[in-house]
Order: sequence, then structure tokens, then C-alpha cells
Amino acid sequence: MKTLLELTRKGKCPSVITKLARQEKIPPRTLVRLIAQGKAVIPANPRHKVKNPCVIGKNLRVKINANIGTSPEQSNIKNELKKLKVALRFGTDTVMDLSTGGDLQAIQKLILKHSTVPIGTVPIYETAICAEKKYGTFLRMTKDDILSVIEQQAKNGVDFFTIHCGITKKSMQLLERAPRKLGIVSRGGAIIAAWMKQNKSDNIFYTHFDEILKIAKRYDVTLSLGDALRPGSILDATDAPQLNELKLLGKLAQNAKRSGVQVMIEGPGHIPLNEIKRNIELEKKYCHNAPFYVLGPLVTDSALGYDHIAAAIGSAVAAAYGADFLCFVTPAEHLKLPDLEDIKLGVISSRIAAHSADLARGNNCAWKKDAMMTNARLKRDWKKQSSLSLDPEKALKERAKSLPKLKDVCTMCGRFCSIKLNEKSFKQA
Amino acid sequence: MKTLLELTRKGKCPSVITKLARQEKIPPRTLVRLIAQGKAVIPANPRHKVKNPCVIGKNLRVKINANIGTSPEQSNIKNELKKLKVALRFGTDTVMDLSTGGDLQAIQKLILKHSTVPIGTVPIYETAICAEKKYGTFLRMTKDDILSVIEQQAKNGVDFFTIHCGITKKSMQLLERAPRKLGIVSRGGAIIAAWMKQNKSDNIFYTHFDEILKIAKRYDVTLSLGDALRPGSILDATDAPQLNELKLLGKLAQNAKRSGVQVMIEGPGHIPLNEIKRNIELEKKYCHNAPFYVLGPLVTDSALGYDHIAAAIGSAVAAAYGADFLCFVTPAEHLKLPDLEDIKLGVISSRIAAHSADLARGNNCAWKKDAMMTNARLKRDWKKQSSLSLDPEKALKERAKSLPKLKDVCTMCGRFCSIKLNEKSFKQA
Repeated sequence: MKTLLELTRKGKCPSVITKLARQEKIPPRTLVRLIAQGKAVIPANPRHKVKNPCVIGKNLRVKINANIGTSPEQSNIKNELKKLKVALRFGTDTVMDLSTGGDLQAIQKLILKHSTVPIGTVPIYETAICAEKKYGTFLRMTKDDILSVIEQQAKNGVDFFTIHCGITKKSMQLLERAPRKLGIVSRGGAIIAAWMKQNKSDNIFYTHFDEILKIAKRYDVTLSLGDALRPGSILDATDAPQLNELKLLGKLAQNAKRSGVQVMIEGPGHIPLNEIKRNIELEKKYCHNAPFYVLGPLVTDSALGYDHIAAAIGSAVAAAYGADFLCFVTPAEHLKLPDLEDIKLGVISSRIAAHSADLARGNNCAWKKDAMMTNARLKRDWKKQSSLSLDPEKALKERAKSLPKLKDVCTMCGRFCSIKLNEKSFKQA
Repeated sequence: MKTLLELTRKGKCPSVITKLARQEKIPPRTLVRLIAQGKAVIPANPRHKVKNPCVIGKNLRVKINANIGTSPEQSNIKNELKKLKVALRFGTDTVMDLSTGGDLQAIQKLILKHSTVPIGTVPIYETAICAEKKYGTFLRMTKDDILSVIEQQAKNGVDFFTIHCGITKKSMQLLERAPRKLGIVSRGGAIIAAWMKQNKSDNIFYTHFDEILKIAKRYDVTLSLGDALRPGSILDATDAPQLNELKLLGKLAQNAKRSGVQVMIEGPGHIPLNEIKRNIELEKKYCHNAPFYVLGPLVTDSALGYDHIAAAIGSAVAAAYGADFLCFVTPAEHLKLPDLEDIKLGVISSRIAAHSADLARGNNCAWKKDAMMTNARLKRDWKKQSSLSLDPEKALKERAKSLPKLKDVCTMCGRFCSIKLNEKSFKQA
């Protein structure tokens, strides 16, 4: 069976493309071309039918991802399903199940079953945990362990995989030659680096990338090439290990595309505002315009407890410069496994960033939305404003907390409401 | 008596400059020059001694302002003093008392008394409210009403005034020729426009600007030239009325400087991300590098309930491009008079934006702070991380909510903590 990428290369336009082109308000042929060229991806495992698929890439609406999943410290599947529900309710475009605690297969299957959007995973997690059970330590995991987890997850219907194929022996040399302030902060990257050190061996995800591609092709799973060496401090931003990895990911992305596998690239991380543009430009250059999936970026290390705000700043700017896909960051970042409220705030902040970038990129639908909000504001229609907002319940509740005596204003300005004064002065329609 | 600006022009270095230069880690002579050139201002009315004065301008740490004050709908002075306390606690550099309800003079005096930072006001508010009492309508206020309120507030010790001197007959013509989607959203601007329409007269703040300058000079009050025509919707961003006003403010700022009065310029408002750079560049050009005080900007109209996040995005970017002073925006924006929690979130979001811009601008103190946080993270020292954060109480509380079994990790990664794995793999110091 042909993959979606192969079909588009033959000029075919499967129904999912027609559907998504309508949503994006672009001609289906344009979308076929973007996918054929590898400038956009539709993470859609044929074994996982979802109500709301999405397309990620150039000139399209910016998409966001929410991470959920258990940890070795907290593993409550019911709670993770609640998080899934919250993330979907507030408008995430995809969800990643990053579970590392409990019965991983059972959790993954439940999340796949209940999700209305594409699901991604990081297969190294399950591999490491299975290896711990099998050998007592993940340091003994083998190529076969990795490939069998990947294949099992593909069979389950996972739509996209993060594959940490860019950290290699050369990376380790670079890291040792000029140590970073905060080393490797990617969990998958740290697991692989520990394994490489212990086994004095190169990274299996790199050495056996072709075998991973075969599985991805067979099940038509999209690959998201992980940045094991993303900076975890702005002091490590845009350094040699990061850029060396990005170049390698660019090469491996070409291999993926040649094999008929859709591919995107993961990016930082912690990056100061003034370096974001360069990071986006380098990704587009090194990775031949493969969609860029950024994890934040956080524009400061110091926003503990409010990292969703630092990430909103970074991801809005990144997407305005051309990043295509934003991984949310919650207020729990660097502190704890996020709870339901954290997930909600993470999704909302990321949506604000994506929407702000859509406006900056001239997306018509985004401008229409803001025009509707402006119009509701002109009419001093708070019900309409609330219904147009990302969190209608909150907007209504906040207004209800502080109802004005004058009905058609708010308690900030009262009778000095500028819109109301304008009406009298200018007799606006 | 000479004003601070006049003293610096004579090469004098008053003690406040020595103190602030030490804080900014620049030579006092440099700061004297920046102020003499009008590229920086120290809003410091000699009648209002504050513990923490601040300097706002070029190459300096980005400063933030928090707005408090009663409204015609809600007027509880005790509550406003609590807001002042919260704003100070979370690190605002200045506070504006925007009260429009209750005994305005009494409120202003109490806020001045309890503030450890400079206080700003918008005198048109008190003028309009006094005129309502005196004549039954603010539409009958006179030049003398305005000047007497300004003088009284200067006597009280107000450190800086927002003066809406840039909206003129020409602005009204521009607004009528090409109506905006949301008209005038500045409260002061809307009051003045209504008065101008009613009285078929030009704006007193413009026609009598020289008399305002005389008072400002006599009491050494800094002027903040208000943007009555800031866009209140991104659909109105960077339009002719806005830019026409900005040009006029630039001219009036030159008059102020010539008169020995320190001056800064207020800016938008609602501006899409891709137009922020141009807005900053135009201000610097039209206003001869007078410090730029931006009200947000909000990068979308659609973040109702979460406007502090839309503003954090806009103000971080604005400050990275050269804005000097950020007015906070709270989650209550467009909804209600902010409560204590709103004030707190507004200040914290604005501080994150300012700090992110400081990093982008290469401010050494900001980089040192992030280096300390990175180091605490490397040591997995959550107490230290919390104490370095903007809201230590919150960070500690969130961690306490979700304590890991393994002491030196968090519940996100548990035993797969990348920093801990690195330690074993790389034997980091």
C-alpha cells in the first residue's frame, strides 16, 4: 500500500487532503503539492481513524500539541484521560502520550481510542521501561527491543513518533569538548546518551534509521525527528551540539522523504528572543523546509511557575518566523507532572501564541476571528465576546464576579467607557 | 530651582543618578548624558520621596508599570492600597493611579504615601469628574479646570502625568474620513474627543501645552505624552490617525525638552506581531529617541480572559526592539476592574516580558540571573530555583502538591530525570 506521501507524489488527492484543504481554505492541489514536497505533513496512521485530523506546515494555520501521560512517580490512567479531554476541549490539534509509568500499552490504547486528534509518542520511553523489566536496566536494551516497540506502537495506530536519531558519537565528543551549562535535557536524549556511553556504541536510532523507516513506511506513521540536544538553558542556546544535530536531522529527513515517509523536525527548547529567527532560518535551510515543531521555545530560564507565558512569547515569535507546530508548555514545567489546570493553561497559552502568529502570517481566518471580536466589543456585547474567546466559561465567570450598575459597560471604565463615549461623539453605526 | 533635566544638561550628577547608575551597572556619566539627551527619564517629583526610584530609557533595564485605581463602578480605597502592595511585592517599577471613583484627592494622597516607587496619573480623569460635579457634565470643563487639577496633583507629589496632547482637530478629520473599526479606545482620548466635538474647539492639552509645561517644570514632573488614538483592535493598527498623533507627540516632546521637562511617549495598544518592529522604529524616529512606554501591545484581540498573555508576547517583542517601559495588562482587561489576583498576574507576566527583552538586549544582570537559575536546575535544587523565581511561594506550593518519592527529581520524569542521567553518564561537576 502506498503512503500518503507517495500518493501525493503521484498527484493523488486522498479524501483527507480534500477535507483539510477546505478547513485551511486553500485549493486541494496546493495541499497535495506541499505534502509531496515535504513542506507539510498529515500525521495520520490508517489504523487510527480520528474525527479531527490536521495538516502541519508551510503557509498553513499554526498547529499546537499538548503532552499528557503518566510518569514513574504518578500513574493514574483515569486522570490522563481527563487531561486528554481538557486538552481537546481547549483546542489542541494533536496530543502526545509521553507515559513512562504503569501499563504503557494499555494507556496508549485507551488514549488512542478516546482521542479525536492525532496521537504522537516517544518510543524510546517504552523501550527503556521494557528493558528495565527484561534486563534490570535500560542500559542493556537492544536494537530488536527498539524496533519491536516501534512496530507494536505503529500497529496500535500511533500517528507520529519522536525518533531521537540525531545524537551520535560526534555529538558526545562535542559535548565533552565544550561542556554545556545544563547538558542534555531531553529525557529521550539522556537515556540514549547513557546507553551509548555504557555500551561504547553509536545511537541505534541513527545506525538503524533505515529499519525504522521501513516500519514507518509500512504503517504510514509520520516521523518527528527529535532534538535530543535541544538547549535546556538559554546559556546553551544555538551551540555546536544543537546545530550539528539539526544538520544531521536534515539529512535523515531527506532519507525519510525518499522512503515515502512524512517527516518533521523538532526544535528547541530554551532560546533567547534575539536568537529565535536564526533558529528557524537554520532549520528551514538544513532540513529542506520540513515542518518545524518547536518545544516552546522558552525565552528565559527564570519563569518557573509561569513557563507557559515564557513559552507563549517564544512560540508566537517562532511561528511568526515560520515554525509550523508548537508544543505547549504548562505552568508545571520544571516543577511537576502537570495537573488538569496546568494542561488547560498550557493549551490556552499555546493557542494564543499560534493565533498571534497566524495573524502575523496574514491568515485570513485568524483576521476574521479578530474582526468578529472587535465587532462584539464595539457593540459592548460581552456574551458574544465570551463565546468568541478561548475559554467562554472563564470570561462569563469573571464578568459575573464584577457586574456593573450600568448594563452595557464594564466595571473598569463605567460611564467613562470609551466605546460608549465614541458612540455619542461620532454617532458610529 | 533647576529640573533634573536642566541639571544634567549642565553636566551635574545629582545623587539619584549616582544611585540609579549603580543599579543599572553603568557609569554615572553615561546616565547623565542619556538624560540630558532625552533618551532616558527619571520620573521623580521632588515632593515625593520614594525608596525605589527608577530610570527608564535607552540601553537600560526594561521597566514595567502597574495600573491601579478605583472606578465609577467600584471605589474601595482599602482594596486599591492592597493592589498597590501586591504590585510592589511582585516587582513593578512604577504604579499609575487611574482612579475615577470616590474621593480622588484622598485616594491619590494615600497611594503616594504608601508607594515605594514613582506614581503616575492621568489628570484628565480628575478634571472630568470635577467638571461633572461643578457643571453637571464634563463637556463643560475649561482650561482653568485642567490646569488647576494638574497643578494640585503636581503639588501632591505625582511623579509623572499622562497628557493626551496629540489628539487634535486634524485627528478628528482623519477619524471621520476613514472610520476605524473600534474608534477611540483611550478613556482620556474619548473624553477629550467628546469635549472637542461638543465645544467645536481644539484640544486644550494641545492648545495650552506650554502652560502645562510651565507647571511640569515648576514641580519637575515628567510628562508621558498619551496616545489618545492608540488602536484598540489590530484592525486599526498603525493607521493614519495613530501615526499622525505620534508625529505630533514627537514635536511636543521637543518642546518639553527645550523647556527642561523630561518626557516619554506612550504607544499602542493592539498591534499584530509583524507590525511591532515598525511601530518602535517610527516612535524612535518621530520622537527623537524619547523613551517609549507601550501599553501592551496586545498581539491579538481574541485573548479575552488571558490578555496578560497576549500582552506578554507583544511587550517582550516591543522591548526587544527598543521599547523602554511596559504597561502591564491583566487578565481582567476588557472584562472588569482588576482584582488582587489580576494585578499579581499582570505584574508577573509583564516582568517575564521585560526580563526576556533584557536578555535579548544583552543585559548582563539578566543573563546572570538566568545563569543562577540554570545552576540551581543543574543541582536539582528546587528551593533555590523557587527563591530565584518571580513568585517563590507559588513555585514551592506547586512542588509541594506533587512531591516525588525520589527526593532529587520531580514528578514529571522521576528516575528518568535527564539531569540525573547526565550526571551518571558524563560525571558532570
